[in-house]
Amino acid sequence: MAQVYERVALIGLGLIAGSMAHAMRRDGLAGEITGYARSEETRKVAAEIGLVDRVCDSAAEAVKGADLVVLCVPVGAMGGVAAEIAPHLDKGATVSDVGSVKRAVIEAVGPHIPDGVHFIPAHPLAGTEKSGPRSGFAELFDNRWCLIVPVDGSDRAAIDRLESLWQGMGARTDEMEADHHDLVLAVTSHAPHLIAYTMVGVADDLGRVTDTEVVNYSAAGFRDFTRIAASDPTMWRDVFLNNKDATLEILGRFTEELFALQRAIRTGDGDHLFDYFTRTRAIRRGIIEAGQDTDAPDFGRVKS
Amino acid sequence: MAQVYERVALIGLGLIAGSMAHAMRRDGLAGEITGYARSEETRKVAAEIGLVDRVCDSAAEAVKGADLVVLCVPVGAMGGVAAEIAPHLDKGATVSDVGSVKRAVIEAVGPHIPDGVHFIPAHPLAGTEKSGPRSGFAELFDNRWCLIVPVDGSDRAAIDRLESLWQGMGARTDEMEADHHDLVLAVTSHAPHLIAYTMVGVADDLGRVTDTEVVNYSAAGFRDFTRIAASDPTMWRDVFLNNKDATLEILGRFTEELFALQRAIRTGDGDHLFDYFTRTRAIRRGIIEAGQDTDAPDFGRVKS
Repeated sequence: MAQVYERVALIGLGLIAGSMAHAMRRDGLAGEITGYARSEETRKVAAEIGLVDRVCDSAAEAVKGADLVVLCVPVGAMGGVAAEIAPHLDKGATVSDVGSVKRAVIEAVGPHIPDGVHFIPAHPLAGTEKSGPRSGFAELFDNRWCLIVPVDGSDRAAIDRLESLWQGMGARTDEMEADHHDLVLAVTSHAPHLIAYTMVGVADDLGRVTDTEVVNYSAAGFRDFTRIAASDPTMWRDVFLNNKDATLEILGRFTEELFALQRAIRTGDGDHLFDYFTRTRAIRRGIIEAGQDTDAPDFGRVKS
Repeated sequence: MAQVYERVALIGLGLIAGSMAHAMRRDGLAGEITGYARSEETRKVAAEIGLVDRVCDSAAEAVKGADLVVLCVPVGAMGGVAAEIAPHLDKGATVSDVGSVKRAVIEAVGPHIPDGVHFIPAHPLAGTEKSGPRSGFAELFDNRWCLIVPVDGSDRAAIDRLESLWQGMGARTDEMEADHHDLVLAVTSHAPHLIAYTMVGVADDLGRVTDTEVVNYSAAGFRDFTRIAASDPTMWRDVFLNNKDATLEILGRFTEELFALQRAIRTGDGDHLFDYFTRTRAIRRGIIEAGQDTDAPDFGRVKS
């Protein structure tokens, strides 16, 4: 792939920014990559491992001369960072982000974007339970989707250019309206994460079953939940606080359905359970056929 | 390892029985392995791939002369199979099972066991989302736990022999009382499965989000749930119907906790969320340190 941007500034240097840096370098998509993180420790590690070409001491310095700035900080921190960098943005530059929530980011960041700067929110649907500057890897986005969420007046050429970058990093792109994005993600990500966190918390908190029992006997299903529930706490706190309505709506539907299944258990309605469990198998097949997960048993788990 | 049993009869030829056959052969633990499955198709496939040494046309025939009989059928079918084989069991033989629920299996199977035959329930905590005679593999039990649930009057030597077999197949063994087993498994397996089934069912059923959207954008967390929710419907129907009380108790605790977190989201209590999400990370670390899951990001998922 040819170079898409001359200078890309990554604000925040965690899993996503780190993976972007690796992926951009793999394919020569950026002339120079600058980076900034609020934590001195993170900046130190990033410099040490050469995560980006230049680690800067401020967000303002990092964005100077950049034709693409990507905000890779927790959703709750986006507005503050936008205010900080706004005066230092080049005319014609694009500001994007990788936040898991889009309406709240648009409301927090949008007002700070100066005239002549493009603002194109985005969300790569990829991640792992790891976080920090050492957690990124070039393949994270391969064959995953990146949703582009243009705002009113987003420039078509600037959108296409950003999509080229994501495609260059291995992703497939699609465009979506902000509120719909937040609802879809409440289903495919936010509600499942809250549910996993809850189940793991309950297991940890039961007096009658020890933590050792939970840990040793987790291979029967529970351990899958613990992976999700090991995700970054700050990021997820911000997701829930900023996608409140959609998450609560989906959790409401979930609870309703869970009650119906509990009732089927209580009344011994085996047919209801069997039919429900048969239907859910089909969704799994769809995901495998769409190339969004492996068909290897147990995810082809690396032997521990 | 030396041979532990002269003739092992596997009743039911799905994932667990198949994996036992592979594991026993790997280590020469059984002189002969016979097998029977109710479905003619399953018996045909088993014979075709040489899953066991001899596929029999009835459970009665399979258990003749066996010094170990392992019931590998759904929990709801255990009682019927026990009644069928009882008259054909050799004196001194051991009958065991691999059911995910123990109290109900003891109640269903126990009364059929003739004098002079040992009954030693067991439960290997291992599995994948795959089922059927082709799904087994020798490594399934390696480093996983097999819980032995002796009943009143279980013979110590017979218990030790069964534990040797499981250890020979790669498992670690522990002994547990039936009701406690059912509670522990409600936490580490049954409740998580029902929750995963529920979430996948909800996603499938939402008018405002299409199935294609759910499938394509599942990499953000949801796809982990779909693996669990692709497990065998008959097996899981029987699990819930036969571990009703413990499952409903844990689901009750889960719902209570979920409501508390929903309330924290609604009221914007970020500290509560952050603390909760930080605590759940520790459980994941415990599971990895105990060798019950891989530390590779995303389970070291095989690339799709």
